[in-house]
Amino acid sequence: MSDSGSGGGFETIAWGGDHVRLIDQTLLPAEYRIVELRTVPEICEAIRVLRVRGAPAIGCAAAYGLALRAVHGPEATPEELLPGLESAARELAATRPTAVNLFWAIDRIMSLAGGRSWSSLDELRQALVDDARSIQAEDDAACRAIGAYGAGLLPDPCRILTHCNAGGLATSGYGTAVGVIRAAHEQGKRVRVWVDETRPLLQGARLTAWELSQLEIPATLITDSMAAHVMARGQVDAVVVGADRIAANGDVANKIGTQGVAILAEYFGVPFYVAAPLSTVDLSLPTGAGIPIEERSADEVTTPRGTRFAPELTATLTVYNPAFDVTPAHLIRAIVTEKGVLHPPYGPALARWAGSK
Amino acid sequence: MSDSGSGGGFETIAWGGDHVRLIDQTLLPAEYRIVELRTVPEICEAIRVLRVRGAPAIGCAAAYGLALRAVHGPEATPEELLPGLESAARELAATRPTAVNLFWAIDRIMSLAGGRSWSSLDELRQALVDDARSIQAEDDAACRAIGAYGAGLLPDPCRILTHCNAGGLATSGYGTAVGVIRAAHEQGKRVRVWVDETRPLLQGARLTAWELSQLEIPATLITDSMAAHVMARGQVDAVVVGADRIAANGDVANKIGTQGVAILAEYFGVPFYVAAPLSTVDLSLPTGAGIPIEERSADEVTTPRGTRFAPELTATLTVYNPAFDVTPAHLIRAIVTEKGVLHPPYGPALARWAGSK
Repeated sequence: MSDSGSGGGFETIAWGGDHVRLIDQTLLPAEYRIVELRTVPEICEAIRVLRVRGAPAIGCAAAYGLALRAVHGPEATPEELLPGLESAARELAATRPTAVNLFWAIDRIMSLAGGRSWSSLDELRQALVDDARSIQAEDDAACRAIGAYGAGLLPDPCRILTHCNAGGLATSGYGTAVGVIRAAHEQGKRVRVWVDETRPLLQGARLTAWELSQLEIPATLITDSMAAHVMARGQVDAVVVGADRIAANGDVANKIGTQGVAILAEYFGVPFYVAAPLSTVDLSLPTGAGIPIEERSADEVTTPRGTRFAPELTATLTVYNPAFDVTPAHLIRAIVTEKGVLHPPYGPALARWAGSK
Repeated sequence: MSDSGSGGGFETIAWGGDHVRLIDQTLLPAEYRIVELRTVPEICEAIRVLRVRGAPAIGCAAAYGLALRAVHGPEATPEELLPGLESAARELAATRPTAVNLFWAIDRIMSLAGGRSWSSLDELRQALVDDARSIQAEDDAACRAIGAYGAGLLPDPCRILTHCNAGGLATSGYGTAVGVIRAAHEQGKRVRVWVDETRPLLQGARLTAWELSQLEIPATLITDSMAAHVMARGQVDAVVVGADRIAANGDVANKIGTQGVAILAEYFGVPFYVAAPLSTVDLSLPTGAGIPIEERSADEVTTPRGTRFAPELTATLTVYNPAFDVTPAHLIRAIVTEKGVLHPPYGPALARWAGSK
């Protein structure tokens, strides 16, 4: 395993010159396998089935997808390449609807491609590859800054509950919520983590537990239904989660179950923190009510990892499987970004900081 | 399948003359298998691994276990049988710590056995078999009364969320929380049910979804983490759950995750109801703080149904697996019993009704 760019013992995603390498996260923790992707459809499939997931990481993947299209395209001139890029951008944007980093990264690459005239196809290709790599490098720097700012919020010792995986695997390598935890750990704070397993796709059990185990940060895996019980016993000092999209008022879309954890934290007086780069902010939406919530296949609920949990569905027995929910801003004690820690009301600070991102 | 005594198309548990028949609930929903048990160790094993589960049903199972001991014992006189029964009672009482119906049923049978002198061993044997069968018959009657009282609390139409399985499978056949739902359905009310899958052992996905499917009551399966989201969307009119032990003040121990659902219901203004027979009340405990909470194997969290969800545990990666939690009385809108609906404060009414049970 390479340590480059991640500092955490694994490299979530990397540019390989003419391909993208990424950890196939659907196979973790049983198998650690690097896959090499060379085409836009391969990138789209990887995003759709969650080989790569986590808002910042799918932003990186989409940017690299456009770089792949530029590098491998049959076109002879910059002018000919642009329509091909536009088509690829549409395919990539259709993979998943909720995390805004995907659209942000696509828009950034497409603005660069269409924003000036290019002297040669090679110049355009190189510019897109360079910018995709910059997106990843900036994400890594943002995560480390988020970690440093967020760690300052945590007491010593600190028992932190997290939901889903906002770790190295969800980003270019360091993590947002897990970045906060590992930064506190690296500072010498005595941290312990409660890891929600995060049904249906088990990003907590499969990915966060794996990452924390690799980092040797003390962690205890629980089912999602146990969060209230451990809070009731006074065993949680803070909740830290990531975000898939943050509306202009500070409402946060994140993995299904996050909203419930935030309500429990409010009830028990536990501070609830969101850690996310400013690329996650969507100033075009005044509130979280406008964030599209992806619904996924019933199989993820009835038959996780190929094992049947439920009876056959019938006319009267159905499944509902929303992949995200929206936590209202008033339940969030602070939002930790790469520019610093935001406190309520979030609107003015988000407009100022994310408006200039 | 026999319909006798259940009214629901299956018979959770039944006395077979010299054996106990029960549905092996660990195999549902993939397989519907009736197992026949003839010894106390077999009954203990069935309770411990949850072949039979649900507070009222394990009370019935324990009572039948003592009846089996009486019927099959090598003793020649009533006086000789009593120490054997006491030993069996200790074995049965050691199977699971939280649901009080287990201890209640054992105490009832043992009080009968030791409470008078018997003219013959056959008379004692028959008395214990009859009383065990009475416990089951009374449970069935209690569930039907609970259903009738509870149905009156539900509006028409009504979208009900339930957690775990407090259905026919958890009782002698009709159910407590599911009894309320099916009674409302039988009254012609338009009910729809949100079924929490109920990790780690999936009693919601495997058992409640199966029962409701058999009853053709419209139901939608969700992961436990989705309850807050469906409440936030205004799609839950009431929560109804069962109970494993109710303290004198109305605090309720029930399947892990219940407390979290109660807090969410409070937050969203959704009434939260507990449906349970008075055999679930433990007047010896002033509050829920004294209820012992069973902790179960890490495998149930890491490897459900034989499928690996999490990395190997290490010195720094552990699992916490409490099987129950305690919902404080102030979060409970009403407790539905076979004698009627209790409203807060619960203490005086529980003392009056359960004291004379």
